[in-house]
Amino acid sequence: MNLVLLFRNDFIRDTNRVLVTGRRLYHVRDVLRASVGDSLLVGIAGGDLGEAVITLLNEEALEMEVKIDSPPPPPLPVTIVLALPRPKVMRRVLASMTAMGVKRIILINAYRVEKSYWKSPLLGKDELDKYISAGLEQARDTIFPEIILRPLFKPFAEDELPGIIEGTLPLVAHPEAGEACPRDMKQSVTLAIGPEGGFIPYEVEKLLACGFKAVHIGDRILRVETAIPVLLSKLF
Amino acid sequence: MNLVLLFRNDFIRDTNRVLVTGRRLYHVRDVLRASVGDSLLVGIAGGDLGEAVITLLNEEALEMEVKIDSPPPPPLPVTIVLALPRPKVMRRVLASMTAMGVKRIILINAYRVEKSYWKSPLLGKDELDKYISAGLEQARDTIFPEIILRPLFKPFAEDELPGIIEGTLPLVAHPEAGEACPRDMKQSVTLAIGPEGGFIPYEVEKLLACGFKAVHIGDRILRVETAIPVLLSKLF
Repeated sequence: MNLVLLFRNDFIRDTNRVLVTGRRLYHVRDVLRASVGDSLLVGIAGGDLGEAVITLLNEEALEMEVKIDSPPPPPLPVTIVLALPRPKVMRRVLASMTAMGVKRIILINAYRVEKSYWKSPLLGKDELDKYISAGLEQARDTIFPEIILRPLFKPFAEDELPGIIEGTLPLVAHPEAGEACPRDMKQSVTLAIGPEGGFIPYEVEKLLACGFKAVHIGDRILRVETAIPVLLSKLF
Repeated sequence: MNLVLLFRNDFIRDTNRVLVTGRRLYHVRDVLRASVGDSLLVGIAGGDLGEAVITLLNEEALEMEVKIDSPPPPPLPVTIVLALPRPKVMRRVLASMTAMGVKRIILINAYRVEKSYWKSPLLGKDELDKYISAGLEQARDTIFPEIILRPLFKPFAEDELPGIIEGTLPLVAHPEAGEACPRDMKQSVTLAIGPEGGFIPYEVEKLLACGFKAVHIGDRILRVETAIPVLLSKLF
């Protein structure tokens, strides 16, 4: 936690003071081992960053005086269209995409996505927010990415995707592509990433028909949690 | 597992046939759901890649006829000097560095590395090999990276590091560096990466004194498992 994320209802009404309990309190007290008088980097969820001075810290609560003064880091100009990974991987990938500055993530179905993944409690809003918050706190950001779930591939690819890619460069990561992933893009990208085992040919064809270009990242097939940072670092 | 890793002692003496049991058997049978007559991509540990045709597959054994014909993918020209991460993270990081083609990994101590990490059973050769094998099988590689453990920072930095960086560009990833991580390097790099929380100033100074240049990867502080793929994708 390199930043303490604050929410509107942490503020004591009509003041610049916040009262924080639970997970954030324990972290500040037991991991950061902060004490009264110390300054912490804070950020208002959806807003700006600043500094907070601890005015009270005990077993039950953390009180701080907050001064907000700078914008969060810029986002990456990318929409990620990702075949839903298995829940254990999803947690890490969600935190790392968020930490890297991705602001729009569309989780889609694919032939090689196990049906049971769609029933994971991880896809509930509170659970998603937990891993997103971890990514924001890690990277000192405040802007929550939008998470969109699309459990049906065909209607998504045919009806929605054409609108989503408009004005962006649509790329699909595909080990068998002839072209390498481009570097240092100045424009927005829509990046489609398949499940472990890859998109099946039908799915790749649907994406190509929609206007996507297939690109590879070398001879080595990487797990989704490694492939995503690799693709994003090449692109931006 | 995108490749079945074979070892010299899997071969039936004086033949091109292998007899495989245990983890690899279960994977081929239960995950890949292969059957007699199917071809699999294989690689000889430390050697070349090829194809194997399944000649027998049952509860106890997998027998295959092997034809080796192509070299493994090229390695990355990098030595990673990494502050020992906590064991859970280490497993994933080891597999992902291996998958990306890193062939020399030096795990070092640093002020913010917890002492207990050095006692983890993960650092035993069999355990290390397990996660390295997973990385090789993922990326269809056969060459095991060399893992070097250096639990004392000062003698390592003073006595060994000057020799290690000779002929390479020595870089240390440091969020406060003035310069961004360079891209598309054509030369060998020695890349030092600190623990969660970073190297302390004394450690950074030691590295700089040795000839390292500090570079950053942007405003966002990333976890080691994300930072490593990001750094390697920028560099190569």
